[in-house]
Amino acid sequence: MKPVKIGLLGLGNIGTGTYKLLEMNRRQIESAAGVHISIDKILEKDVKKDRGVFVDSAKFTQNPNDILKDQDTDIVIELLGGIEPATDYMLEAMKNKKHVVTANKAAVAASYDKLGRCASENSAIFRFEASACGGVPILNAITTALSANEFLEVLGIVNGTTNYILTQMEESGLDYEDALKSAQEKGFAEADPKADVEGIDSANKLTILIALRFGKYVKPRDIPTIGINKITKLQIEEARAQGCKMKLLASAKIQDDELEYSVKPVLLKNNHPLAGVSNEFNAIFLHGNAAGDLMFYGKGAGPLPTASAVLGDVIEIAKAINLRRNQNGGK
Amino acid sequence: MKPVKIGLLGLGNIGTGTYKLLEMNRRQIESAAGVHISIDKILEKDVKKDRGVFVDSAKFTQNPNDILKDQDTDIVIELLGGIEPATDYMLEAMKNKKHVVTANKAAVAASYDKLGRCASENSAIFRFEASACGGVPILNAITTALSANEFLEVLGIVNGTTNYILTQMEESGLDYEDALKSAQEKGFAEADPKADVEGIDSANKLTILIALRFGKYVKPRDIPTIGINKITKLQIEEARAQGCKMKLLASAKIQDDELEYSVKPVLLKNNHPLAGVSNEFNAIFLHGNAAGDLMFYGKGAGPLPTASAVLGDVIEIAKAINLRRNQNGGK
Repeated sequence: MKPVKIGLLGLGNIGTGTYKLLEMNRRQIESAAGVHISIDKILEKDVKKDRGVFVDSAKFTQNPNDILKDQDTDIVIELLGGIEPATDYMLEAMKNKKHVVTANKAAVAASYDKLGRCASENSAIFRFEASACGGVPILNAITTALSANEFLEVLGIVNGTTNYILTQMEESGLDYEDALKSAQEKGFAEADPKADVEGIDSANKLTILIALRFGKYVKPRDIPTIGINKITKLQIEEARAQGCKMKLLASAKIQDDELEYSVKPVLLKNNHPLAGVSNEFNAIFLHGNAAGDLMFYGKGAGPLPTASAVLGDVIEIAKAINLRRNQNGGK
Repeated sequence: MKPVKIGLLGLGNIGTGTYKLLEMNRRQIESAAGVHISIDKILEKDVKKDRGVFVDSAKFTQNPNDILKDQDTDIVIELLGGIEPATDYMLEAMKNKKHVVTANKAAVAASYDKLGRCASENSAIFRFEASACGGVPILNAITTALSANEFLEVLGIVNGTTNYILTQMEESGLDYEDALKSAQEKGFAEADPKADVEGIDSANKLTILIALRFGKYVKPRDIPTIGINKITKLQIEEARAQGCKMKLLASAKIQDDELEYSVKPVLLKNNHPLAGVSNEFNAIFLHGNAAGDLMFYGKGAGPLPTASAVLGDVIEIAKAINLRRNQNGGK
């Protein structure tokens, strides 16, 4: 049977994690998909770097059209990061009848409508599980198994960097600057931590959750957003004295028939399921009108957890490709 | 467009919950499925009972063949409970090219192989999300979004009755008999609590989790199973003194290339994510070789959480029916 062919945009941390995971779990992945999967082309400038995995240099290209307009490519995985040219490339791929998988929360949040419309117009499958909470399969759950529910509330700890910093301030008594430094040393925060600590990353993910769960596209910049960069040791101590934990929460809820949303630091009682979510872990708490309280917990970032979500999406698309081919007599 | 027609076997607690949920969330459910869904026939003896929802008496039948062999029925939902005649009915429905959804863990666990083979031979879709952990969409997650992972370990609190009893023994200092009585008063335990407290229900669910996650069918009776009915107040107190909680765990793990499995009471350190799962709640903890630690938490039983899973399965099948009809030119 013809393999499902993938073009990969970007072989940075996440791209390399995805390439490695496909090699590492190939048997499991291809058995789940029911078809062979191969990454044949990779858009990446840095062809010499030692990534700890063998990549045939013939796969590299510097011309995006070698992937976006390639007749043989079935799925384009976009892992460049940043809004452009990532968004343009995804749109171009769909127009050329490729299915698209991305982990790029900023791009999905910025152009949710446009990307979805383009996918639909071109009968392309567009999946982005990794864009909200990395390895935690929350988007899949709310769009499939939980879709018989109406949700009045979605609450999430959706950024591992800020949760790590707040946990360190709480558990080790560090002030904000020292906890940030610790996060940077451990690789949980970037040299420029602005997007994380100011809540921008959380707002991107909330845009995606709101769109999928409440069917409304709210741009990230229209979400009232307060980060954690002004939180003091004293506030953390006061929270503890009240039997609470300080968490950066992305929240959306229906209040008097209106959808309310925000990203901001919130005091949670210690017995709230989200209060026990520590360090770099993420979690989403939902209340469905049938399923009741639900929580999904796991790693929201990192090359392998993100690759887990990316390849989960690839498997679902490969199944659909396979089904269509079988219905067309194996073509 | 032609609606997707459902035949319902059983209008007890779960059947009534499913009927009510479809009425309550019809707009959400049909919008997710992309097609109208109607429950047209119901196999149920008790046609007079007041269930708090209007059911047209013309829908009732006492003859299973009115549903199993009905030309117009697309999906059969089996909510009779018990192994037979439920299993026979499901097999008969599939042989008549009906898709099947069930919440019946005992039947799925007892005949996992046979039911799966029959579905595959008849191109029927067979789904049973509600059979393990009710409203917690764990089966869907491990067979779709997480399927790029190899899992070395699956640990679960999969029975709400026993978790409620253990929580009450721990938090209220009750002994086993009084905690059981409290569970019975609250409707969390049945008059004959044997299947729950002796771990049989947990073993059924573990059979299903092992089959889906490790690809091996282990019969419930072949799972070493110890219940909680011999747990004493003293043991709970000793656990607490050691900074632990006693939980009835269903576990499967790969150890030296061998799959090991059991259901038994286990001491969990208080900082283990499963230690915080109290009362009637269920949770599954997994460690994937890519996604890392993951936990899914929610209500494992009750009419509406179970109905949430049943109708989630119905929606997925309705989408597939819809797709096939569109490909066949609307037929």
